Amino acid sequence: MRTSFELEHQDGLARAGTVTTARGTFTTPCFMPVGTRGAVKHLSSLDMEDLGAQVILSNNYHLMMRPGADVVEQLGGLHKMADWNGHTLTDSGGYQIFSLKPKITDEGARFKSVYDGSTHVMTPESAVDSQIKIGADIQMVLDVCSELPSHPAVIRRALERTADWAGRARSEFLSHPSASERQSQFGIVQGGIDLAMRKESAERTVEIGFDGYAVGGLSVGEHRTEWHEPLLAATGVLPADQPRYFMGLGDPSGIVDAVARGIDMFDCVLPTRLARHGTLLTSSGRTNLTRAEYATSDEPIDPEGPASRWSKGYLRHLLQVREPTAQRILTMHNLWWLLRFVDDMRLAIAEERFEAFAAEVHELWS
Amino acid sequence: MRTSFELEHQDGLARAGTVTTARGTFTTPCFMPVGTRGAVKHLSSLDMEDLGAQVILSNNYHLMMRPGADVVEQLGGLHKMADWNGHTLTDSGGYQIFSLKPKITDEGARFKSVYDGSTHVMTPESAVDSQIKIGADIQMVLDVCSELPSHPAVIRRALERTADWAGRARSEFLSHPSASERQSQFGIVQGGIDLAMRKESAERTVEIGFDGYAVGGLSVGEHRTEWHEPLLAATGVLPADQPRYFMGLGDPSGIVDAVARGIDMFDCVLPTRLARHGTLLTSSGRTNLTRAEYATSDEPIDPEGPASRWSKGYLRHLLQVREPTAQRILTMHNLWWLLRFVDDMRLAIAEERFEAFAAEVHELWS
Repeated sequence: MRTSFELEHQDGLARAGTVTTARGTFTTPCFMPVGTRGAVKHLSSLDMEDLGAQVILSNNYHLMMRPGADVVEQLGGLHKMADWNGHTLTDSGGYQIFSLKPKITDEGARFKSVYDGSTHVMTPESAVDSQIKIGADIQMVLDVCSELPSHPAVIRRALERTADWAGRARSEFLSHPSASERQSQFGIVQGGIDLAMRKESAERTVEIGFDGYAVGGLSVGEHRTEWHEPLLAATGVLPADQPRYFMGLGDPSGIVDAVARGIDMFDCVLPTRLARHGTLLTSSGRTNLTRAEYATSDEPIDPEGPASRWSKGYLRHLLQVREPTAQRILTMHNLWWLLRFVDDMRLAIAEERFEAFAAEVHELWS
Repeated sequence: MRTSFELEHQDGLARAGTVTTARGTFTTPCFMPVGTRGAVKHLSSLDMEDLGAQVILSNNYHLMMRPGADVVEQLGGLHKMADWNGHTLTDSGGYQIFSLKPKITDEGARFKSVYDGSTHVMTPESAVDSQIKIGADIQMVLDVCSELPSHPAVIRRALERTADWAGRARSEFLSHPSASERQSQFGIVQGGIDLAMRKESAERTVEIGFDGYAVGGLSVGEHRTEWHEPLLAATGVLPADQPRYFMGLGDPSGIVDAVARGIDMFDCVLPTRLARHGTLLTSSGRTNLTRAEYATSDEPIDPEGPASRWSKGYLRHLLQVREPTAQRILTMHNLWWLLRFVDDMRLAIAEERFEAFAAEVHELWS
């Protein structure tokens, strides 16, 4: 197995552990900042080191389009290109392609590039191949994600195609031993919010056998409690000794709900996107820096962290006049806050007080 | 005198010295990065410390409009607001207001705000007062800058009004002893490229008596050798024991030409604006990172400095897909390069090899 998961503490279903890959280790629960095109917006690998980020997520679809998987490979792969020695994970980009209304066949997805309108096909195999060139530590299979709500027949078709594509992706991956020694590949569970289909999808994905498992297609618009049971139906089936990743979730309340159901890894553009619009994650909840009351505040957003030396009044001013310095500092702050939040949660699990931790988070964030 | 200038070395007319203000000292020749609205685009005061910047220039007009001089004052003034302990200088913003086609009377300039279309008047006195509130170490008088070429009568009228306004600005400044103990005020020499008018403007500005002297209205579109003699006509009159500042000049070639004629201080948006468009200052001259040949280059822009850990290929990719991380890193690089360039020039003056230094610069940059 290319990825191992050592469970260090368990509190209810909440897990604190360490993932080991060919590159090294990272601790869980883990939040992965999103650097879609090879950099988190406004930040560099130096900043990610300063923040103590462990894993950065990038996007295969976007990197395939620009600068191209071959160019990333020529630049030494994602790590060398970005001079980032921590872990990386690439999503296949299926989710982004589906937003382009592609033509889906058994073969794959045919879509037009948002960059220049040219036509491309992504297949389960080609998604593996380009992710091998890009060279992240963990690559994701190409799956089919249904919108919620969708007719059960639509969910079923997506589940079947996801399972079929997963098998093909795994074969393709294993047929490149030199890459698959360095990289890990995660499968993705679909099935909408139907408990039976979630369970079936998890079983079929585990049957194929991956280095880790993701749960996709949840928290895509449904009410935030609606995904709780379907998630549990999936994690109940996933092997305890492998990492589990909830795709696209980044709000504190959702994170604790997913950790409470056995999830280890998270990614989301939320903290960085919110930051660029002036919305801050703070110990008293979410606040918007554009509020007039902050105009003359000489208090910092937080007495600790990367924004601590500047006042709310100053950062608000820079934000209002669209100075990118504000977006940078607020992005640093939100990521710092969320990474610390996840570490605090890890400690709460280790100290068997996760339930109280979760209750506090719900109080402030739900 | 609120500002003193200690001449440490002179090589021809090129000066290496130290300026002392109420805040402390900075060495010359000095390049001042431009943070118009209270921050250099993409950078924070932490970055300016890392770069070793000595003086940051901000703009009275822009800060008056947003967040307002009163708000800056409530936030503790420019230094405290930006948490910057180095020197600051505010331009009056006359130059920006003149681009808004204001109505100029003896009283001042009436203009419409670019922010909300509201009408404002800036007078020589109000420019002093708002700059007192903003609280930079050095404030500039409101002057009248003519376009080049302009009819001699236009240059003459601008010269007269600049002299008249300078006298009023100085009186206003000195009538606020608590501010004028902390701040310095620089006068501005106008006169187009007419030698006699330049000399007269310098004499009349010196006669009023300021803490330092700027030369304005040169390098505003005329050929780059056309301002050499007019500059010399001005600096020949300016007191040797006070700092001299050439407004709005930032290309290496222009900087050595001005230093060769006795100038000590510079500011320009050029290095930061070029960076945002991918144009780099390097030891082999100016280069544009968007060039196709750099797409797969794994060489750094420069083996030293704040961009040294990333390749041209990576930074070009980020620039092409408009990731702000690229603009930030390239801005850091260009400022680092120019600040080091100015330090190298200072050393060349100290070692009496300024002429050879200037010749090399002209070879590469003219």
